[in-house]
Amino acid sequence: MKKLLYRLEDLQEYIVRFFTHYKVPEADARIVADVLTSADLRGVESHGIIRLDTYYGNQIRRGMIDPQSPFKTIHETPAMLAVDGGYGLGHVVGYHTMRRCIEKAREVGVCMATARNSNHYGIAGYYAMMALPEDMIGISFTNAQPLVAPTYGRTALLGTNPIAVAAPAGRHRPYVLDMATSIVPIGKITVYQKAGRPIPEGWGVDKDGLVTTDPSAVLQGGALMPLGGTDIMRGYKGYGLALMVDIFCGVLAGAAYGNKVGGPSTTYPANVGHFFAAIKIEAFRPVEEFKRDMDELITMLKEAPKAVGEERIYIHGEKEFELEERNRKNGVPLMPAVVKQLKDTGAALGIPFDLEPVGEMDEPEG
Amino acid sequence: MKKLLYRLEDLQEYIVRFFTHYKVPEADARIVADVLTSADLRGVESHGIIRLDTYYGNQIRRGMIDPQSPFKTIHETPAMLAVDGGYGLGHVVGYHTMRRCIEKAREVGVCMATARNSNHYGIAGYYAMMALPEDMIGISFTNAQPLVAPTYGRTALLGTNPIAVAAPAGRHRPYVLDMATSIVPIGKITVYQKAGRPIPEGWGVDKDGLVTTDPSAVLQGGALMPLGGTDIMRGYKGYGLALMVDIFCGVLAGAAYGNKVGGPSTTYPANVGHFFAAIKIEAFRPVEEFKRDMDELITMLKEAPKAVGEERIYIHGEKEFELEERNRKNGVPLMPAVVKQLKDTGAALGIPFDLEPVGEMDEPEG
Repeated sequence: MKKLLYRLEDLQEYIVRFFTHYKVPEADARIVADVLTSADLRGVESHGIIRLDTYYGNQIRRGMIDPQSPFKTIHETPAMLAVDGGYGLGHVVGYHTMRRCIEKAREVGVCMATARNSNHYGIAGYYAMMALPEDMIGISFTNAQPLVAPTYGRTALLGTNPIAVAAPAGRHRPYVLDMATSIVPIGKITVYQKAGRPIPEGWGVDKDGLVTTDPSAVLQGGALMPLGGTDIMRGYKGYGLALMVDIFCGVLAGAAYGNKVGGPSTTYPANVGHFFAAIKIEAFRPVEEFKRDMDELITMLKEAPKAVGEERIYIHGEKEFELEERNRKNGVPLMPAVVKQLKDTGAALGIPFDLEPVGEMDEPEG
Repeated sequence: MKKLLYRLEDLQEYIVRFFTHYKVPEADARIVADVLTSADLRGVESHGIIRLDTYYGNQIRRGMIDPQSPFKTIHETPAMLAVDGGYGLGHVVGYHTMRRCIEKAREVGVCMATARNSNHYGIAGYYAMMALPEDMIGISFTNAQPLVAPTYGRTALLGTNPIAVAAPAGRHRPYVLDMATSIVPIGKITVYQKAGRPIPEGWGVDKDGLVTTDPSAVLQGGALMPLGGTDIMRGYKGYGLALMVDIFCGVLAGAAYGNKVGGPSTTYPANVGHFFAAIKIEAFRPVEEFKRDMDELITMLKEAPKAVGEERIYIHGEKEFELEERNRKNGVPLMPAVVKQLKDTGAALGIPFDLEPVGEMDEPEG
């Protein structure tokens, strides 16, 4: 697919214009712009600018997101905080909660934080990665609208509830795990449906809860399967991880959980919940020792013998860092359909998307 | 298989006799006895009394485990502690570290802890569950000897590195996730080999890193696959979780990591690392509200429509709690081969296993 390349700064300025149009304070709009473009930079297009109006603009117009993001801390100790997001933008709630979490961890070594009454916050990895320049390990979970069936069930009751963990290394790039607890996101099923291709056995179930290779059967009354897939492949572990995320983000945070988490298609606010943690490495051992051992562990993995037919063993986050480096240099690739959507909605809303692409490139749909 | 049933207290007293014979202080021996029998009670026979001599006795005799377990805290703040296990028994190190973690969480709401220079600590879930009577969420990870290949690799570089998380509920039983980050443990491959059955495609790879259904090919120079299995089923997520556990337990704790973790077959101490966390629910929201929502989430899952052909949706830990209740009442089932092993080694070591079974029952090998 031919994609159009845009300057990162141009996209960020457009996003700021978009949100300030909706009375989002400029500082908050800059946070959202950074989180959204971070997704496109890192190749996670499903969580980037594609959602600008379809999700966030739409939810602000419907009164489901408060553009002022009036979040407040409802309880804190030196080692934790519980935040009420005030139905604000998830990125703003997430950024400030993780920032505060890092500050507390600087003092006492570790901190955990929850947020309730929040909204979709983009890529979970962004908040975990905020810990990296502080020589901390960062953790970020969020719950989400129901799309995943529990093992032996047939209906979507849990979100794709991602787990993100970031840890710094020395000469190597950091480890950044950012994984949905389903096998694939729902967008991947849609891509197969559009292409008229069967999905691999185990990605999803139909309305009877039976494994299907028909993407339409998953999308129409079916559900995604949790990591692991079928029982024999231990899909109940992925189900257990999705449930763990919901216990932290829904139940502990005091947000919605299970099939009560809302979104653009519900008549009530999403009430998404998040969980964050920051771990100051120096509290546990000298940072240089930690980074030396991270490097050695990463080297051990990367230099190990490869399976027949494979040329490279990856560390989590590595592909995304490579994409980010390329895209910062050449421009951020957007699909023509996304550009058209930005132009159409921008024109209709009076926030014209009048950016000039700086080039184009061939790349598969992300 | 016909299993023999023993009184829980009898087994515990025997384990105490076994360890005190090896100069383990009686209070410590009681901890190990409780952890080991907890595994057998909950149906995780691979981590129970079966390892009494083959693992722990053997490692003490080889000088790889110090029976005095001279662990000490090397650094602490009000919200964390880093422990050096002094090459002691993993159960003793784990128990005391988690106990201290809980005490700190009582004061400041959350605590995290690491332990280095430790040994195999039994079931990870035991330590996570220690948080339950305190109205806390408990977390426990450990690394382990290499058995799992990274995605696209062919050699075992990571342990089956379990993740355990326990959270209390109200009228329902607690949620207790206790999962290896591989699809199955190595013992499951051995069971298939003994039975002459092929393993399901995706559980393991052969020495070339290729997926195999031959259990012997996995056991002889091959490796287990991480949760998810193949690339198309997103096995790199399971690989990422196994690596996360090693970063927390090996690198952050300052223990061994990757293929440097030892065991009964290595000429150096295991230097296993653990990670623990305790989260005081009341710091985040009232405990009654948390438990009410846990109950509602669990009910939502359990009462949801079942897949065709299935009759029940489980919550993690539920099967194990049912087994524990049954086994506390009827006796703890041991396989005849395990009883023979206990009798043989007990006689040879001068710690005769002279317990009388209280009955027998039919149950598949666990």
